[in-house]
Amino acid sequence: MRRLAIMSRKIFRELMEPKEVLKLIANYVEFKPLGVEEVPLFNALGRVLAEDIIAPIDLPPFDRALVDGYAVRSSDLEGADEWNPVELKLKESGNLSEGEALEISTGSPIPGGTDSVIMVEYTRRKGTGRVEVIKSTTPGEGIVYAGSHVVKGEKVLERGIELTYREIGLLASLGIDRVRVYKRPKVAIISTGEELVRPGTALPYGKVYEVNSYLLSSLVLEYGGEPVFLGIVKDELAELKSTLNEATKFYDIVLTSGGTSAGTKDLVYRAIEEIGKVIVHGLKLKPGKPTAVGIVNGKLVLALPGYPLSCVMAFKLLVAPVISKLAGIAIKSPTRFKVRVAFGFEVAKGRYNLIPAVLVANGDDKLAYPILTDSGNVSALKLADGFILVPPDRSFVLKGEVIDFEPFSNNITLPDLVIIGSHCLGLEQIISLLRVEEPKLNIKLINVGSMGGLKAVRDGYCDLAGIHLLDDRSGKYNIPFLERYKLRGKAILVRGYLREQGLIIAKGNPKGIRGLKDILKKDVTFANRNRGSGTRILLEILLRELSSTLGIELSKLRKSIKGYEVEYRTHTAIALAIKYGKADVGLGIKAVAELYDLDFIPLREEEYDFLINKVSLGKASVRKFLTILRSEEFKEKLNSISGFKTLKDTGEVIYD
Amino acid sequence: MRRLAIMSRKIFRELMEPKEVLKLIANYVEFKPLGVEEVPLFNALGRVLAEDIIAPIDLPPFDRALVDGYAVRSSDLEGADEWNPVELKLKESGNLSEGEALEISTGSPIPGGTDSVIMVEYTRRKGTGRVEVIKSTTPGEGIVYAGSHVVKGEKVLERGIELTYREIGLLASLGIDRVRVYKRPKVAIISTGEELVRPGTALPYGKVYEVNSYLLSSLVLEYGGEPVFLGIVKDELAELKSTLNEATKFYDIVLTSGGTSAGTKDLVYRAIEEIGKVIVHGLKLKPGKPTAVGIVNGKLVLALPGYPLSCVMAFKLLVAPVISKLAGIAIKSPTRFKVRVAFGFEVAKGRYNLIPAVLVANGDDKLAYPILTDSGNVSALKLADGFILVPPDRSFVLKGEVIDFEPFSNNITLPDLVIIGSHCLGLEQIISLLRVEEPKLNIKLINVGSMGGLKAVRDGYCDLAGIHLLDDRSGKYNIPFLERYKLRGKAILVRGYLREQGLIIAKGNPKGIRGLKDILKKDVTFANRNRGSGTRILLEILLRELSSTLGIELSKLRKSIKGYEVEYRTHTAIALAIKYGKADVGLGIKAVAELYDLDFIPLREEEYDFLINKVSLGKASVRKFLTILRSEEFKEKLNSISGFKTLKDTGEVIYD
Repeated sequence: MRRLAIMSRKIFRELMEPKEVLKLIANYVEFKPLGVEEVPLFNALGRVLAEDIIAPIDLPPFDRALVDGYAVRSSDLEGADEWNPVELKLKESGNLSEGEALEISTGSPIPGGTDSVIMVEYTRRKGTGRVEVIKSTTPGEGIVYAGSHVVKGEKVLERGIELTYREIGLLASLGIDRVRVYKRPKVAIISTGEELVRPGTALPYGKVYEVNSYLLSSLVLEYGGEPVFLGIVKDELAELKSTLNEATKFYDIVLTSGGTSAGTKDLVYRAIEEIGKVIVHGLKLKPGKPTAVGIVNGKLVLALPGYPLSCVMAFKLLVAPVISKLAGIAIKSPTRFKVRVAFGFEVAKGRYNLIPAVLVANGDDKLAYPILTDSGNVSALKLADGFILVPPDRSFVLKGEVIDFEPFSNNITLPDLVIIGSHCLGLEQIISLLRVEEPKLNIKLINVGSMGGLKAVRDGYCDLAGIHLLDDRSGKYNIPFLERYKLRGKAILVRGYLREQGLIIAKGNPKGIRGLKDILKKDVTFANRNRGSGTRILLEILLRELSSTLGIELSKLRKSIKGYEVEYRTHTAIALAIKYGKADVGLGIKAVAELYDLDFIPLREEEYDFLINKVSLGKASVRKFLTILRSEEFKEKLNSISGFKTLKDTGEVIYD
Repeated sequence: MRRLAIMSRKIFRELMEPKEVLKLIANYVEFKPLGVEEVPLFNALGRVLAEDIIAPIDLPPFDRALVDGYAVRSSDLEGADEWNPVELKLKESGNLSEGEALEISTGSPIPGGTDSVIMVEYTRRKGTGRVEVIKSTTPGEGIVYAGSHVVKGEKVLERGIELTYREIGLLASLGIDRVRVYKRPKVAIISTGEELVRPGTALPYGKVYEVNSYLLSSLVLEYGGEPVFLGIVKDELAELKSTLNEATKFYDIVLTSGGTSAGTKDLVYRAIEEIGKVIVHGLKLKPGKPTAVGIVNGKLVLALPGYPLSCVMAFKLLVAPVISKLAGIAIKSPTRFKVRVAFGFEVAKGRYNLIPAVLVANGDDKLAYPILTDSGNVSALKLADGFILVPPDRSFVLKGEVIDFEPFSNNITLPDLVIIGSHCLGLEQIISLLRVEEPKLNIKLINVGSMGGLKAVRDGYCDLAGIHLLDDRSGKYNIPFLERYKLRGKAILVRGYLREQGLIIAKGNPKGIRGLKDILKKDVTFANRNRGSGTRILLEILLRELSSTLGIELSKLRKSIKGYEVEYRTHTAIALAIKYGKADVGLGIKAVAELYDLDFIPLREEEYDFLINKVSLGKASVRKFLTILRSEEFKEKLNSISGFKTLKDTGEVIYD
C-alpha cells in the first residue's frame, strides 16, 4: 500500500469463485486429515475423533438397582399387599434363597438368586433380621440390566465427530482414558507491508497497526488449526521468498496477508511464482478479491488481502473450508439464515458481495442493516452481527429483499429494544437508568442520525428513534417531518426535552470565533456532522440564512468551509476533533462541549423528541423506557446536565 | 451407592428451586468477578474484558486513499472530461501545489495540498513526468478521513464483553497489545464413591468408571472457569473433610459429585456440616434432586449428584450461573426454544423435570423425542440434542404439547433425513451408499422398532420408517398394520426386501438348541428384544403358537423363559449378548449371526418394507433414498449379505 510505478501493476487473471478454487486446490492438496495422534481423554475436548469407538464393556457393567430398597425374588411376593404383607429374612451378602431379601442402594449390583428390587417405601423393618413387604414385584422391576444402555461390542462413536463433554463422558464411562484424534493443521501466519507496526509500540505518521495476525490467529483456532505467527515481512521480495520457503517446510498451511493487490506490486504473487506455483489469482469476492493461492514445497500458501474486512471474508469463504478439511471436521461456519434488508444498496456485479450488517428483529422477520463502509474498517466487524451474501448476478439489492445472512457466531441474540436515530447524551441517560433496572435487557443503539431514525420507525425496523428535525419553512421541530413522511397511524411522538445547540470551540477560543460566519475564515477548520443528522440539517438551514445575509451563492459558501466534506458521526466525535486539534469549530450540543472542557457559543434551543413505533408500544422494554422518561429521577438527572432542559410535557404524547 | 443401614438415611429438607438457591447463595458469596488480570492480546480470545476501552488513536490514523490513483486538487480538475482532459505535473513526494498530482495507492496518506483522489481508471500517463485526467473530482472524493471509523477518545468496547476475533482485531488496530480481563474462577472437582474406578484401569465386578470429573472439567471450561481435578475420595468422612478443607483454601469454588443421596449416607452433606455450613439440601429438580450447597472456609461448595445425567443437569441449572457470575460474563447457556413433544410421558410433580430428547424437524416445527431412561445412562447424553424443561406444576406432558427445550449447544443442526423405525443391516447399507453420494447430508437414524416407526410416520415426525410387522390373523406383513393405524393418504409403503429371521445361538450350539421350544429349558438364557420391535412381535406370535401346541398358559410360558424381561434394542445387541455369553439364544436375522460368527436356526422369511411420509416425498433426501433402493448397485450389495434377498418389486410402491 505504498506509492509505486503504475507500470508494474499486475492484471488479475480470471477471477474465480471460492467453490471453484476449492476444487482446484484439491488437485494439489489431499483434502483429508493430516494424521492421527493419541491424547489423554482429559485433553480431548474439542478434538476430532480419528477412530470408531467400539464399546469394550457393557453399560451398566452389571445388573444394578434402579432404586433404594431390597433385592427380592418376585415369586416370594406373589399376592403381597398392605393387608397381606410378606415377611422376608434379611441377608447381609451373597446369593439369596427363597424367603430372603437383601438391602440394596441405587446403583448396587443385584445379588444372585433375586429378580427384582422392591422400593424401600413399600417395606417396614421388623427388628434387625427381618423386613415386611406390602407390594408384589414382577421380574426385572427395579433393575437396570447390564448392557441396557450400551452393549459391549456396539459402535458407540463414529470417526469424525467432535468431542464435547457428552462424548467425553461416554468414553470415560467405558473406561477409555486415551483417544486417537486427528492432528490439528499447523498454520503459519505471515503479515506483509512496510506500513505495518506491531501493537504496543508507537505509531509513526502514515503507518498503521498490524491487525491481521490477531484476526487470523483467532480464526485459525476457531476452525480447528494451530496458529503460529511468524512476524511482519517488509515489502521485500527476497525476505518474503525466504520466509515462505522456510514456513512451507515446517507448517501444513501458510497464510499471508497483504501484498496481493496491484498497488502493492503483487509482492506475494511474485514470491510464490518464483519459488513455487500460483494456481489462483483473484477471487470473485468483494471484499476479498486480491487473494492468491499457491503451492510452495508441496504446501498450500493462501495469500489473503491486507485490509482486515477483506482478509476476514476471504478467510471465511476460502481458508475455513481448507483448514476444516485438513482437521477432519465438517466446516464449522455458523448456520446461515434469511434476513430482510433494511435499505437498498449497490454491489459489484460479477462477484459475491459480503456486506457486514447489524441484525434487528421485526416480528418474525430478521432485519439486516447493511454497514456500507470501506474494507479497512475494523470497527464494522465489531458492530456487525454477521454479513449479507449477495450472489454475483446482482448489481443491487432492494430494500425489503429477503437474502442470505451468515452470522459471525451461532450465539448472537436479537435485542429486546432497538433504538435507531440521533445520538444524544439525554438518551444515553435513559438507557443507563434502564440498564440499572433491567440488567438483562439486550439494548441495541444504532446512531444514524434523525432522518435515519425516522425512516427506520416508518419502515418498522426499530422500536423507537430520538429525533430533532427542524423544518425550514415552519420553524417547527419534528411534527412537520412526521406529516411529510406519512407517519400518522404508524408511530406516536413523545415529547422529549430541549437541547442547546451551538458552536463548539477550543478552550480559550484561540481562533477568535464569534459566530457561524467565522467558519468561513481561511485559517479555521470546521468539523461537520454526517448527512441525515438533525445537527447537519440545522447547519444547512443556518448556512442558507448566512448565504442570503452575505449574498454568497450557497454552493460557493460550502466550498469555502475548510473540512465541510469530513463527516463525524456523533457530537462526541465533533468535540474530540476539536479537543485534539483536528478542527477548530463544529456544531454540537453544549453538554458535550462542557464534557470535554471546550468553549461553546449558543445558537439555538432545539426539541429532541422520541418517535415510537406503534407496534412496539406493547413491548415491556418500550413501556419501561417511557416510564423512565416520565420519572422524576430522569428529569432531575437530565436537568443537571448543562444545556439540557426537560419540559412540562416531557413524556407526553404530542402526536398520534 | 453401597448397601448400608436404612436407619442412617437422611431426610431432605425442603426442596428448593434453582433460582431460589441462587438468591440464597448470594447472601454468602458476592456474585461479582473475582478479580482482574492483564493478558497479552494474543492470549485474550474468549476472555472477558474488565475495562472500558477508550480509543487512544483515530481510525484510520490519517487521511488515506480509498482507491489506487492520483492525489489531486479538485480545483485543478473543474470541467475535466474525456474531451477536455486536464494535464497535471507528477510529483514524487511532499505537499502539492496548483497543477500537481501524486501517484497514490489504496491506504496511503493523502499528501498536503490535495483534497481528493482520482481513480487510476480515469487517468493516462504522459511520459514520465505528467498525467492526463479525464474526470473532475469533488473535495473528499477517494479519501477516507482520519477518525471516520473510530474517533480518538471514543469508547469502543465496554467492560463485560467476551473477546472474539472481532474485538481482538479492533484492539490491535488501536495499537493495544495487552488487555485487562476478569480472572477465571478456579474450580476444584472432587469425585466421591467407593464404587469408582479411574478410566484406563481394569474394572472389578460391581465397580463403575469415574465419569463426572471428565464431564465437570469440560463443563467448567465451557462456562468460563479453570477446572482442577483433585481425585476420587472414598466414602470416608475424615478424608472427605480434609480434602474439602484444603480445596476451599486454594480454589474459588469446589464441586463434588456423589455422596449426596440418602443411599450414600449423605456423606458430603455431613462433611460440609461438620467443617462449614449447609445452606441448601435438595433441589426441585429431576434428575438432580440430591444436590447440596454449603460454605466452607468462606468458599462455595456445590455438592452434585453422582449419576452423570443428574450431575450434568444440576450443573446446567445451578453451577453454570454461579461460575458465569464469578467470571463476569452473562450466562452462556445455549438459547432455549419451543419444541413439540413427539409422545406423552409422566413426570415427577413438584419438581422441574429435565428430559433428554432428540430433535427432528417437521415443517417449521421442531419435534422432540424424549429419551425416557434412568439418570445413570451416559449414552443418553450423547444421543440427545438437549433437554425438555417441564415446570413443577405438571405431572405429565401430552403428546403434541409445545414446551421449552434447551439444546446442549447452539450449534446443533436439524437433520435433512429422519429415519425412525426398525434397525436393519439392509437399511444401513442404503444409508452408507447415500453418505458416499451426499457426504454433507445430515441423516438421523433412530432405532425404536417397527411400531415406533409406524407411529412416527403417522404423526409426521419422520420422513420414513423401516418396518417388518407380521399380522397374526392374516399372516401378512405390514399392510394390515397400515390399515389398522389409518395410514391411508398419509403415507405410502415401498417394497423393501426379505430377511431371514431365526434363532441366533453360540458357535457349535453348546446348549443343543434345535427350535424355539428349547428357550424354555432351565439352563438356557434367552436374549429378548424390546417391545414394539417387529422381532418382538414375531416372538410373541411364535410363543402363542407354542403355548397352544404345548398346552401351557401363555403367561406361564413367558415366566419360564430365563431372560425374558431383559430387553436388547438391536439385532447386533442380541448377537453380542450371545457372543459374550450373557445369553444362549435370541431371535434375530441371519446376517447378524454370520457377522459375529454365531450359529443360526432359520424360522421365517419376513418382509422388511419402507413406510414413507407423503409430505416428505418432495424432499431431495427422500428421493435420493428411493433412487438408491431401486439401484442395481444396492440390490447387488444386499443380495451378497447372507439372509437378505431383494424382490422383483423392490423399490415399487405397494400401498398408496
